[in-house]
Formats: sequence, C-alpha cells, structure tokens
Amino acid sequence: MATRGTGGIAAVRCAGRIGVVASVAMNLAWIAIYIRRCYFGGGGRSDNNGGVTTVEPSKGKPPVTEDSIVNLDHGDPTMYEEFWRGIGDSASIFIPGWQTMSYFSDLGGICWFVEPGFEREVRRLHRLVGNAMVDGYHVLVGTGSTQLFQAVLYALSPASDGTPMNVISPAPYYSSYPSVTNFLNSGLYRWGGDANTFDGDTCIELICSPNNPDGGIRRAVVKSKSSKAVYDFAYYWPQYTPITEAADHDIMLFTVSKCTGHAGTRLGWALVKDTEVAQKMIKFIELNTIGVSKDSQLRAAKIIGAVCNSYELSSAGKTSHLFHFAKEKMVERWIRLRAAVAASDIFALPNELSGYCSFSMETVTANPPFAWLRCKKDDIEDLEGFLRLKKIITRGGTKFGVDGRVVRVSMVDTDQAFNVFINRLATMN
Amino acid sequence: MATRGTGGIAAVRCAGRIGVVASVAMNLAWIAIYIRRCYFGGGGRSDNNGGVTTVEPSKGKPPVTEDSIVNLDHGDPTMYEEFWRGIGDSASIFIPGWQTMSYFSDLGGICWFVEPGFEREVRRLHRLVGNAMVDGYHVLVGTGSTQLFQAVLYALSPASDGTPMNVISPAPYYSSYPSVTNFLNSGLYRWGGDANTFDGDTCIELICSPNNPDGGIRRAVVKSKSSKAVYDFAYYWPQYTPITEAADHDIMLFTVSKCTGHAGTRLGWALVKDTEVAQKMIKFIELNTIGVSKDSQLRAAKIIGAVCNSYELSSAGKTSHLFHFAKEKMVERWIRLRAAVAASDIFALPNELSGYCSFSMETVTANPPFAWLRCKKDDIEDLEGFLRLKKIITRGGTKFGVDGRVVRVSMVDTDQAFNVFINRLATMN
Repeated sequence: MATRGTGGIAAVRCAGRIGVVASVAMNLAWIAIYIRRCYFGGGGRSDNNGGVTTVEPSKGKPPVTEDSIVNLDHGDPTMYEEFWRGIGDSASIFIPGWQTMSYFSDLGGICWFVEPGFEREVRRLHRLVGNAMVDGYHVLVGTGSTQLFQAVLYALSPASDGTPMNVISPAPYYSSYPSVTNFLNSGLYRWGGDANTFDGDTCIELICSPNNPDGGIRRAVVKSKSSKAVYDFAYYWPQYTPITEAADHDIMLFTVSKCTGHAGTRLGWALVKDTEVAQKMIKFIELNTIGVSKDSQLRAAKIIGAVCNSYELSSAGKTSHLFHFAKEKMVERWIRLRAAVAASDIFALPNELSGYCSFSMETVTANPPFAWLRCKKDDIEDLEGFLRLKKIITRGGTKFGVDGRVVRVSMVDTDQAFNVFINRLATMN
Repeated sequence: MATRGTGGIAAVRCAGRIGVVASVAMNLAWIAIYIRRCYFGGGGRSDNNGGVTTVEPSKGKPPVTEDSIVNLDHGDPTMYEEFWRGIGDSASIFIPGWQTMSYFSDLGGICWFVEPGFEREVRRLHRLVGNAMVDGYHVLVGTGSTQLFQAVLYALSPASDGTPMNVISPAPYYSSYPSVTNFLNSGLYRWGGDANTFDGDTCIELICSPNNPDGGIRRAVVKSKSSKAVYDFAYYWPQYTPITEAADHDIMLFTVSKCTGHAGTRLGWALVKDTEVAQKMIKFIELNTIGVSKDSQLRAAKIIGAVCNSYELSSAGKTSHLFHFAKEKMVERWIRLRAAVAASDIFALPNELSGYCSFSMETVTANPPFAWLRCKKDDIEDLEGFLRLKKIITRGGTKFGVDGRVVRVSMVDTDQAFNVFINRLATMN
C-alpha cells in the first residue's frame, strides 16, 4: 500500500496553502502556476465526427521548466511513460462497448469480482520475478492497494475482546497509514503509532519493505503471537531492490502503480493465505465499491502480460524489458542525487544498501523510489518549508512520525522534474 | 447509489447457503450448478503469440437454461449487452499502454482525479435528457455511486454536537444502505432506520427516486432544517420513469450501471452544489482509493458520448438510441410480468405509475428496474425462500426493512433469464 505516496494530495495541489514559511504573495503565484488548465489541452474534447466521439485523456501534472515548481511530494510514477511509449502497442488494449458489463467476473472462484485473466497474469509475474510465492495463495484485486489495506484492517479487526485493533508501523512509516486508518473513526481499528514504542501485544503491524519513505529492508518488529503482520510489498520489485527471496507471508500487498508505473489505473492485488481472511477482505470490497473496475483489471492484465512476454520470449529485445529500463533509470538518478548531495554539503542520505538479486543474478545496489533527504544545518528545522521556498515540493518528516529536518522526495517522476530538482539541490548550501 | 442492488453478493452466489427452507441436498446441487468454471471459458487466456498477450475478458453469470437457477437477486444490467453489441464500435475504446499513468487528471479543477472528458460528457448527457441541472454544480466521480454515497456520509458527518449522524431512508429502502453505513462501525455516522418512524431532527435522509426496490417516486420525508437530503438518482432515466423535471437538489448521485448498463466499469458521479461538501467528498475518495480508475472514466466518457451522439446527430438511426431500446424492452417485460402475475392469482404488484415525460415528449408509464412482488397466500411468509425452491433467486422484503411476503426481482437481466422467470411464475398457484 505504501506505493502511493499521495496522502494529502488536495492540500498539496495548491502547495502554498500549507506553507508556514512562504509569504501570501508567493502562495498566490504558486497557485497561479499550478492552475493552468491550458496544460491539459482544454480538459478533454468531444467531437462529433459522424458518430465518433473522441475523448481526450488527461496528461497528468503540467510539464516542469527551469523556473517552475517541482512537485515531488507524491510518488507519481511518470518516469515510466517513456518506456511504455517506446515499446509500441504490445501493452495497449481495445475494449468493445459491450464487454464486461456484468458486476460478476468469476463465480467459480473465491473472489467473484476478480478477472480470471488478471489473476493469471499476476501469478505469472510473481513466478517470473521470484519475489513472492503464489501457490497456496488467494489472489484478490483492489482499487489500488490502498483499498486492499483497508480490507485487511476490516478482515483482522476488532481485537478478540471487541476493542478497536491497534494498527502500528515502525517510524518512519508511510504517511497515509495513520490517516487512512483513522479517517472514518472506526470502532474496529485505530492508529496505534510507532511499532517501536508500542506497548501491547494485540495489533496489526504494517511492514513496508523496502520501506516508504526511507528504503529500509524490514521485518516484523512485534513478536507477539497476537500480532498480525501485513506486508506492504509495493516496492519489492527488481528496479528498486535486490530480490532476495520469494516472500511467503500470510498477507502481502502489491500494486501496479510502482511496479509498471500505471498509477492512474488504480489497481492493486493481495496474496492471502487464509481463506477466511480473504473472504472478509472480499466482503469489504463488496461493501465499499461492489468490486473493482474490470476495465482496469483487463488493462493491467495486458500490461503485466507484456512485461512477462518480453522476458519469456526469446524474440523480444532488451529494450522491451521493463525492470531493466527502470533499474537503469534509478541507478543513474541515484548516482546523480548522491553527487548533488555531496556537492551541497548540507544534506545527507541513508547509506546505500546492496545484495544479491536472484532476478538479475548479480549483486546490485538498492535504488529506493523515494529519497529520504536529511538536512545537517542546525537552523533548518522545517526542511519541507525550506525546500518549498526553493519551489521544490516534498513531504516533511513529521508526516512519517519523525522530525522535520528530513523530507521524502519522489525519485520516479519525469526526467524534466528530476533534472530541475538535482540542479537546484546542487546549488544549496 | 441504489443502482447496484448487489448487497450480499457473496452470500447469494451460493444461494443455497442462506436458505431457510431449502434442504442441504438442494443447496449442494445449487452450488454445483453455480460453480461451473467452464462457463467462463477457462477463466482467461494468456497466449504467447509473438509478444501479443490476449487477455480474455470474463462473461458474467453463466447462461440460463429452462432447468437452471435464475439469479434475479442483483440488478445485474445484462439486458443492455444486446444494445451495445448491436451498435458496433462507436462506444469502443482503445487505450495505449502509455496513457493516463499519472495519479492526476485535472489540477485546474476542484476534483484532481476527474477526467475532464468524463465530466464534459456527463454534463452533456444531463442537458440531453433534462433530468438534472448541471450549471452551478461540481461533477465528482466515484468508483460506482456506492463509493460516492460513503463520501457523502463522510462529508456530512458527524452531527454538529459531535455524535454520529443518523442515516435514514423510508422503508422499503435499498438493502445496502444499512450495511454500507454500518460495516466499519464508524463514529461519524450510523444507520438510523426507517425515515417514517425516525424520531429526531438531525439526520442524513437518503431519497432514492424512482425507489429501489419498489419504484416509488419520492421526496424528502423529514422536513427539519438540520436534515440533509441526498438524492439517489440511479434510476432517474427515461427507460425507467417519466422525466418530469430537471432536478436541482444539493447532492444528487448517478451511475453508469443502470443508465447505460455498464456495471462492471464501476463508475458513478455526483452533482454537488456546495463547494465545501464537494471538497470533503473528494477527500474521502482520496483516502479511500486515491482517486478513480482513469480507464473506467475514459470508457464511460466514450459510452456516454456515443449515447449523446446518437440523439444529437441526425444521421444516427433510431436503432442506436439507447433510451428507446431500453424503454421498449422494459415496457415489453412489464406487460409480460403483469400478465403472468394476473394468471398466477397469488401475486400482486404495485400499481402502474405514469406521467408526462419531457424527454420523450409524451405521457408514458413507468417501468421500474425491479419488480416488487408480493405474495397474497397466507401460508407463504418467506417469499424469497418459496421462490428459491422454484430455483428463482430474489431478495426478500426483510432486507429492505419490511416483511418477508414481498421480494425484489431484477427486471434488467438477460432475455433468457427473464423468459425463464416469467414462465415459472405463470405456473405458480
């Protein structure tokens, strides 16, 4: 679930609004820069060409220029668009007007709303990458892994004595965990804070590995038998970290957003061992959204299938290898970031991790999807605010349960945005 | 939100499980009939044809035969597939692999995740049909109107004194309202029951019109100033009811499921007058699913655009008119149902409603999407159970807050299913 990194999108869109340092005048200027509908081609088109309606898709965030705001607050995986444009139509999909109109996808399986083709491609992908076991697991689909995270809370709560289940994670934890857990003020579960300081036995522990925000490799902290571990494996893919084992935990969450870069498709999946837990998760999604978009499932299946084909078919060239493309990008970006940080002299990054990757069959360095950037200057206690004055939008440490001298910066945005960020960073001192 | 009619899908899939009349042997037989994966073409295909992956879409519920179970529990709008197959590719969509990868759709508008092309087609459709005002309204998108319903509860709760807001609706009310309101045991809101017997002022009243399950035309029951009315207009379309006014309530919910029949696309929208309410609803969807599938939005935009084109372009033939197709179907089905009910002598239906429809510019009868079928025999107190023994799955009155001598029956399933249902009904006495 930690893939997203989009908690607080509404607040950050007009970034100046949340500024504590920026002046009102500066705020208005930023808002004006953001609100440029012209970037979006007029916001869609509807032409009457002899009965053919053309619906122009949106284009995401506006392009970045040398002077503009760079929004690296969210983990918006726009870095991947270049790859998918490059490989042609093998991941494109045509959906006839009459297709998949029913609520139902699979009345024969445990999950009535999962498209069998999607489930099949998910199992194929895990077998290819070797990052998780799939035999003996139910494959559930969700509207992003955020929905699956909530389905897990519903399935594992309340505590056996009927009180709300504590939901915890070691700080720094993904900033959306507390807000998504608490926003409905549920009597079933509540945010219990930092797992390192949790004083109790019964809980749901969220283990994000590699961790959002800091890239750390994690195992469960709480060892109690009445603790239930949920693994958020949004980033356990070869472009970000060495694949060291086929994970076989009871509940594991994944998403296409950070695997293939298709965040707009809102598609995640869960591998769940226990049938009763799976059934309760299905019930949550039934009540919350009556299943999951079949269009998104079919598109994700096509995309994942294209990834698998490129590795499994000898005829496919290396340029069509998703994980190789993304890893090269990430390696290059991390080299440039570390150089810029070294040049600036006021920043620090976590130590580089490395390990043997069973997928690429070599020892590789980890390339986390976020930089966890710390400021060494004593007088900068609010690094998010400091960077905002430099027109770089990041997410401050307090949102992740730690101090404000550190921020999370997306490493998966466009080349343009990354380049401007690096250039600005290198000049700070 | 009442479009769905799918509450309790998991329970009903294996219909026998919830039976109180049926024997265990009969249950197992039913389960066996249901669980036939072969109907689903093996559940999807993944062929390696020179790099091209074919993902076979699911086909919904298994076909109905003279002897099989007929599942009319859910409002699965499979009736519409015939129409969309008939009009060719004007509602088909091609989605390139690199399209709409970002989380963001529209940073210039109020709702950052709504596709501008979708919003535009929604406004166009309402102007065409004349069933709701759109000027001065925000258009929000949701993963089905079920999600928007929950977003409304979040936006309007808790009560001003901080206690959970009561959520009410006049019985018979859509069976999912209580379960969706209560499933997370939220401290913000709770199900308050039948609006007719509600003893209080502060509440959210859900007004479904035409009403699911009984097709009644409704207005708010609670007149208190501190009551907030939410209009569920899932069925306020010309095939189901005369369009008598362009509604202009503060909050109105719609969905493609029962308008065009695309339930599997999971797409709904809300027309919301108040900016603050709209912003809170957006926040809910941001926390719940980080936006809404862009694939579904673009597909829905294409489909709605095709509907509008067919009416607005003089070159389009009448066979391509969605609302005319669906109305003809519904009229024919209601005539046959009323004849079968008259022949059986043990059933009764609500009186036929009619009115002047500003869309079709004539006086028309209403053709509700569900039949609200009552049994007149004294010894049948559980009509759902009685019909289940006849292998007809419906939803009993107790789930809608009334007695068990009445059931809700979907009128929008396939011709096959409807025919078998009518034939069986006519023989009952």
